[in-house]
Amino acid sequence: MTKQRLADIVFEHNDSASKRFDLVLLLFILASVSVAIFDSIPELRQQYGKQFYILEWTFTGIFLCEYILRIWLSYNKRGYVFSFYGIIDIVAILPSFLGLLVLNSQLLVVIRALRFLRVLRILKIGRFIKESEQLSRALKASRIKIAVFLGIVVTIVLIMGTLMFIVEGPENGFTSIPKSMYWAIVTLTTVGFGDITPQTNLGQFIASVIMLMGYGIIAIPTGIVTSEITLQGRQNDTSQIKCSTCRYSNIDPNANYCSACGEPFLKQ
Amino acid sequence: MTKQRLADIVFEHNDSASKRFDLVLLLFILASVSVAIFDSIPELRQQYGKQFYILEWTFTGIFLCEYILRIWLSYNKRGYVFSFYGIIDIVAILPSFLGLLVLNSQLLVVIRALRFLRVLRILKIGRFIKESEQLSRALKASRIKIAVFLGIVVTIVLIMGTLMFIVEGPENGFTSIPKSMYWAIVTLTTVGFGDITPQTNLGQFIASVIMLMGYGIIAIPTGIVTSEITLQGRQNDTSQIKCSTCRYSNIDPNANYCSACGEPFLKQ
Amino acid sequence: MTKQRLADIVFEHNDSASKRFDLVLLLFILASVSVAIFDSIPELRQQYGKQFYILEWTFTGIFLCEYILRIWLSYNKRGYVFSFYGIIDIVAILPSFLGLLVLNSQLLVVIRALRFLRVLRILKIGRFIKESEQLSRALKASRIKIAVFLGIVVTIVLIMGTLMFIVEGPENGFTSIPKSMYWAIVTLTTVGFGDITPQTNLGQFIASVIMLMGYGIIAIPTGIVTSEITLQGRQNDTSQIKCSTCRYSNIDPNANYCSACGEPFLKQ
Amino acid sequence: MTKQRLADIVFEHNDSASKRFDLVLLLFILASVSVAIFDSIPELRQQYGKQFYILEWTFTGIFLCEYILRIWLSYNKRGYVFSFYGIIDIVAILPSFLGLLVLNSQLLVVIRALRFLRVLRILKIGRFIKESEQLSRALKASRIKIAVFLGIVVTIVLIMGTLMFIVEGPENGFTSIPKSMYWAIVTLTTVGFGDITPQTNLGQFIASVIMLMGYGIIAIPTGIVTSEITLQGRQNDTSQIKCSTCRYSNIDPNANYCSACGEPFLKQ
Repeated sequence: MTKQRLADIVFEHNDSASKRFDLVLLLFILASVSVAIFDSIPELRQQYGKQFYILEWTFTGIFLCEYILRIWLSYNKRGYVFSFYGIIDIVAILPSFLGLLVLNSQLLVVIRALRFLRVLRILKIGRFIKESEQLSRALKASRIKIAVFLGIVVTIVLIMGTLMFIVEGPENGFTSIPKSMYWAIVTLTTVGFGDITPQTNLGQFIASVIMLMGYGIIAIPTGIVTSEITLQGRQNDTSQIKCSTCRYSNIDPNANYCSACGEPFLKQ
Repeated sequence: MTKQRLADIVFEHNDSASKRFDLVLLLFILASVSVAIFDSIPELRQQYGKQFYILEWTFTGIFLCEYILRIWLSYNKRGYVFSFYGIIDIVAILPSFLGLLVLNSQLLVVIRALRFLRVLRILKIGRFIKESEQLSRALKASRIKIAVFLGIVVTIVLIMGTLMFIVEGPENGFTSIPKSMYWAIVTLTTVGFGDITPQTNLGQFIASVIMLMGYGIIAIPTGIVTSEITLQGRQNDTSQIKCSTCRYSNIDPNANYCSACGEPFLKQ
Repeated sequence: MTKQRLADIVFEHNDSASKRFDLVLLLFILASVSVAIFDSIPELRQQYGKQFYILEWTFTGIFLCEYILRIWLSYNKRGYVFSFYGIIDIVAILPSFLGLLVLNSQLLVVIRALRFLRVLRILKIGRFIKESEQLSRALKASRIKIAVFLGIVVTIVLIMGTLMFIVEGPENGFTSIPKSMYWAIVTLTTVGFGDITPQTNLGQFIASVIMLMGYGIIAIPTGIVTSEITLQGRQNDTSQIKCSTCRYSNIDPNANYCSACGEPFLKQ
Repeated sequence: MTKQRLADIVFEHNDSASKRFDLVLLLFILASVSVAIFDSIPELRQQYGKQFYILEWTFTGIFLCEYILRIWLSYNKRGYVFSFYGIIDIVAILPSFLGLLVLNSQLLVVIRALRFLRVLRILKIGRFIKESEQLSRALKASRIKIAVFLGIVVTIVLIMGTLMFIVEGPENGFTSIPKSMYWAIVTLTTVGFGDITPQTNLGQFIASVIMLMGYGIIAIPTGIVTSEITLQGRQNDTSQIKCSTCRYSNIDPNANYCSACGEPFLKQ
């Protein structure tokens, strides 16, 4: 097996060997994440704490080997190290080593949580790529509309949160504007924990208005994303005629002449 | 009445006799499910326990007869027994008999619950079929996109659940990462039970971000399914007719004459 | 003013006099509904009970006059009395008279609540008609798909409710299958009151699955209705060419010949 | 720098100088809003109350200067003062001065909250304008449909609220029709605080119906807005070009040649 072949297996996703590599790696990631999750349950930690510790170091070792392998196989080593997945790969290994220096630190767990980001790599496997690319293209195309929408939501939350702070006041749980804004978000997004609820009549009326608003507002991002996905789907789907002269894709199935170069089409 | 005629009534859904058979069967299923439900209410069980017991055995008898009838009428007996509905049919009868052996068992109820799956057969009656087929085709076409979406949701739940476990900690109800992930799902899906709620300022801020994310993310499956249903509708709806004389694609499926050359179409 | 003119004002909605009549009636309905609402607030009832009583009888008198007027003005008196709005009109008057016989009855309030249905008449005023017709046409076209969808939801609720009844049991609030089904609906629809919540680990896992399902399932009715409204909109919107011979609306803007009768179009 | 140039910077959003002006202003608004928010947190107010007071007056001074500058630079001074943003600009300054007269008043905070509306100005900056215009056009086009929808929702809330008031009664928290309507809105919009929940079997059944309704009803505004945004997108996107020679409507907006007769288009 040449180095070239190995690089194909590690970095590409198109033949059965590389797919098997991706799958095995995925299983290791899932296993290491599962160990971290189980380790957080007090009863399990007490009983299997030692086994979890050993497993964690095993996975760290495997991921370290994988990281070194990837660097060795890269044509552009710098490019890999500073790429998005390159950084995630190193960040997923570091917490265990940092744990040797700053033992028992709460902060360590925060960094370790980032390891979960590795699961994102699932998206790179096989035929999921095309679909997730289409999705992310649709999201990218609608990102400005979504930013405008988020701006509107934040403004509503600011105004409504302040209003509720004035109307209900600290005696009903609305102790400050940030807490009122937290409540407004809980209400507008229709989550509704119920840890803080309006008690006065006016407060309940304003809350009703916020809820109906939230109900209507949810239509906006849905509308934006849906229309974008529909558009993406239509562009893939139209039975286009490719001009044999200039290779332009004509979208009109009845075209007699190419609309890019004016060349006549021979009807079949 | 021949055996062939009887098989038509039992297995088909196209004439009035078979429709009546389906309806009667549906009523029996609903009645047997209702008895199981009422039997679970402590007050009713105490008072009518005996009647429920008799009714349950009556329905079991009827379903057993129906099952034997279906096997007898099937051309391909093996095919029926191991088909999806064949397995549901037997599973719906077994629990009562198992109840004779393992009396009063909790496990019995678990199997009995499967009887509810029989209600799915409603979908097979009459004109519901076409519509439900169109729906399931739209869902099947978008299943990869939905899998990608679920992968993203699970990743967000993992990261956010871990973050909240670190920030809030066991003293505020976030006792382990699985429990924090349960909370993250409750919040992201905008259910918001309120049995666990963030108490710290940072926790409430992160919760706000999760809620706004959930609000935006809900747009994605809706967009996927909507664009798929719209596409399905359009494909049924604009089946273009190509003119045999001038090869023009007519977009009106009701055209009698080609709208480009005026040639009449021969309807088939 | 002739009887014909008066009937126009009362039954039609197209000139300024009839619109003013509708508006005045609407205000009376809103006022009478408001009185009933305020009457339900204990503090207000104690203080203004007598005034509310007088106002209620005043509105009853006005609606009685209106009802008699409508009967007198109808060509087809029977048709009006047994029409949808004819029945609502009489039902909105009766509760007050029934109150004379069965004083202080709880049942009276149930019937009185029906008076609120009168607010539906708002939809008949002015330009709201066209839009609400378009909406109701879209809903009618998708009613079978929605019935299929509701059938699926009820089946999921049955299965999941029973599962949770078995897993959590009466000690955690899931006292019977109907109560568990109520919880399943609360969860699947993302309402999440939090009056009953899963306490066991398995219960919380199943709850997570139900929530993610609910999140995905909400996409289906949205997809159905959206695709239907889009279709309705497109039909109104395409720049159609009306054939001057057979009056068929051609949907292809490039048509040279009518696709219904084959008549050539003269291009302008 | 001429007065003309200064007016361009202050009122327009098209060159780098005016964009920098907008950005600086935006930062001042955000800072002043943040101070108001922090001032509402009891602990921070106690510690930094004086600093917040000074900062508030500094921002008031800056906004006053900006207001005077805008008046001086306007061609049509009256038009600016009574425009939407002109009124917001003055309302954002007044509360601080009113505070000198009616010290420590609760009412002052209500007016101060309006300052948050200034954040809306973000929407006027740069390329957000086009996207937000498209969004608001889509919302404007569907406003009658949304009004019809809101009318239906209010009617359902009225009927369901009254029904629950009768069924559950004051002993289960449904103390009056307005409170029941508040609960109905909380439930229909899937917020589900859980501060009031049905306790009787019939009440839980009606609640289930309301929740399933709310689940279906949310599809309607989404459908309306989505179909409108899709329509807006299509109108921008398929601006057909009519050939001046053969009058064929070309559907490709990038066409250089007519796809029917091959005639070249002169690009403007």
